[in-house]
Amino acid sequence: MANLNYGEIKTLLEKILIKYGFSKTDADLTSEIFTDNTFSGVASHGVNRFAAFIKLAKEGFIVPDAKPKLIKSFGAWEQWDGQLGPGPLNSLLITDRVMKLAKENGIGCVALRNTNHWMRAGTYGWKAAENGFILICWTNTIPILPPWGAKESTTGNNPFVLAVPRKNGHVVLDMALSLFSYGKLSSYRREGNQLPFIGGYDSDGNLTTDAGKIYDAKRPLPIGYWKGSGLSLLFDLIATIMSGGKSTMELGQSETDSGMSQIYIALDPSKSMSAESIDKIADEIINYYKSAEPETGEQILYPGERVKLNREKYKREGFEIDDNIYSKITDLL
Amino acid sequence: MANLNYGEIKTLLEKILIKYGFSKTDADLTSEIFTDNTFSGVASHGVNRFAAFIKLAKEGFIVPDAKPKLIKSFGAWEQWDGQLGPGPLNSLLITDRVMKLAKENGIGCVALRNTNHWMRAGTYGWKAAENGFILICWTNTIPILPPWGAKESTTGNNPFVLAVPRKNGHVVLDMALSLFSYGKLSSYRREGNQLPFIGGYDSDGNLTTDAGKIYDAKRPLPIGYWKGSGLSLLFDLIATIMSGGKSTMELGQSETDSGMSQIYIALDPSKSMSAESIDKIADEIINYYKSAEPETGEQILYPGERVKLNREKYKREGFEIDDNIYSKITDLL
Repeated sequence: MANLNYGEIKTLLEKILIKYGFSKTDADLTSEIFTDNTFSGVASHGVNRFAAFIKLAKEGFIVPDAKPKLIKSFGAWEQWDGQLGPGPLNSLLITDRVMKLAKENGIGCVALRNTNHWMRAGTYGWKAAENGFILICWTNTIPILPPWGAKESTTGNNPFVLAVPRKNGHVVLDMALSLFSYGKLSSYRREGNQLPFIGGYDSDGNLTTDAGKIYDAKRPLPIGYWKGSGLSLLFDLIATIMSGGKSTMELGQSETDSGMSQIYIALDPSKSMSAESIDKIADEIINYYKSAEPETGEQILYPGERVKLNREKYKREGFEIDDNIYSKITDLL
Repeated sequence: MANLNYGEIKTLLEKILIKYGFSKTDADLTSEIFTDNTFSGVASHGVNRFAAFIKLAKEGFIVPDAKPKLIKSFGAWEQWDGQLGPGPLNSLLITDRVMKLAKENGIGCVALRNTNHWMRAGTYGWKAAENGFILICWTNTIPILPPWGAKESTTGNNPFVLAVPRKNGHVVLDMALSLFSYGKLSSYRREGNQLPFIGGYDSDGNLTTDAGKIYDAKRPLPIGYWKGSGLSLLFDLIATIMSGGKSTMELGQSETDSGMSQIYIALDPSKSMSAESIDKIADEIINYYKSAEPETGEQILYPGERVKLNREKYKREGFEIDDNIYSKITDLL
């Protein structure tokens, strides 16, 4: 385990990105996103995924210098083509664009096609909230979730973000539609732990808390069983129709997890009330939410609160990077 | 059990609505919604709830002739006040309005405050889909769901709708954020059946499939545990901030389930492609979704498919109305 601080990780990733064709500006932004994801407690979409990201760039599935291009504008809704540029850069740019549409129209929507994996979905919710906007966004994915009642995966886990700005801590929900991601299943298996709740089926069709059995059977559960399954289908339908891009089915036909369709909807609450009034309402709602008597004595957290705590912790203590992951990254230098 | 057809139920409800102060036009529309909800398989928000709806009108919590009023317009986003009019009528009118905004701007949003229970959330998704629009909408509710980790309810089950138009059957997801509603828990208890999945905690804090124990402990589970809990908070925050209306906390302080805040977002996909192209994409996605090998031999259904089947069934066979519910309604004549 190496212990690295924010600047050390960022500088390392930035150097590698420049080597693999990213401009100075893009490398700066991309390394910041990967480092920020890591320090937010989501290393699975930070340092742990960086080598795989570079591999996709080397193989041409991610085009380092491609930029999203406006296809059609319908007023407050625009269609953009991501041109297979780096997912996190595309998503940041589109988040900026959709905030501009919301500033002009009260609400704005961008439907983005042909983009790449955006890594941590929450990144864009945080970005919008930091600028005073409410953001609703989601992506489709390759088929990795069985519809309710089925054994085979014909829908995506389609991560979904809702973000609300708040001075005392932005409220950012970042959730995939499977109860446990494959990443989580794999870490439970590695550590030999049972899942805290039933998370899917084994290959005999029995519900289980055994992460390894679910992983092997490829049968994770959607959140809320039939509900998450339906939600996943609707997210795919809306993203595909509105962007004119690829559906989960089409993504599943290609060699890699590349070319997805995404929806971004931003709202500008500052048009109807001051930031102070928004904060007052948000504080009241959150204080009430957190006031519920806890089961175990642990405090009730709102979405985004753990990220805030993680950032403080890693900033204080540095991030312990796994030797294997660290050497995979330094090998790219 | 009385067996009634669509026209018989609608005429009965319409007569009562007129008696209690609804105009001819409003009684026509309202009775249609209640009857349609019943024939869609959601009698809990149809005939089963009609007597309670009239009671709220008699007591002044629902104002039969009140109409939503535009408060502020910010372009593609408008704030409306429901003025405590009948929830289903307010919601239908706002659905019309948000489609108009989407027609003009590509996307539109109405944030509605001071409205009343909209009954079946899906009603407005079907309405939008029938007109060729995509609809995203939700409502807040009184606090009836414990946040994840808590014993007390300080958040709502905030029903949520996503709808996509499609010639061969609109795709309409209509879901509350608790895995099982209180209505469902109560019918499982009445019939002496265990829930098919763990649905909440008993009063000792143990997860259980015993609907009665969950009902008494007031501890239903959010969908996806911590995920549905967070989703519920975000829906309340966005609806309250954007409408300037009441939060779940404030709704909980009043005597009845009245005065809620709602968000309606409509998208007009016809701006970028023909209805035929939308259908082609939607059919492909749905056929793929349904192609997954089922666990039990039962076919995989898409959201809205059951409603379609129910409508066909009840149209053919009539609706068997419970004697107790029927006499509660006829007592109002």
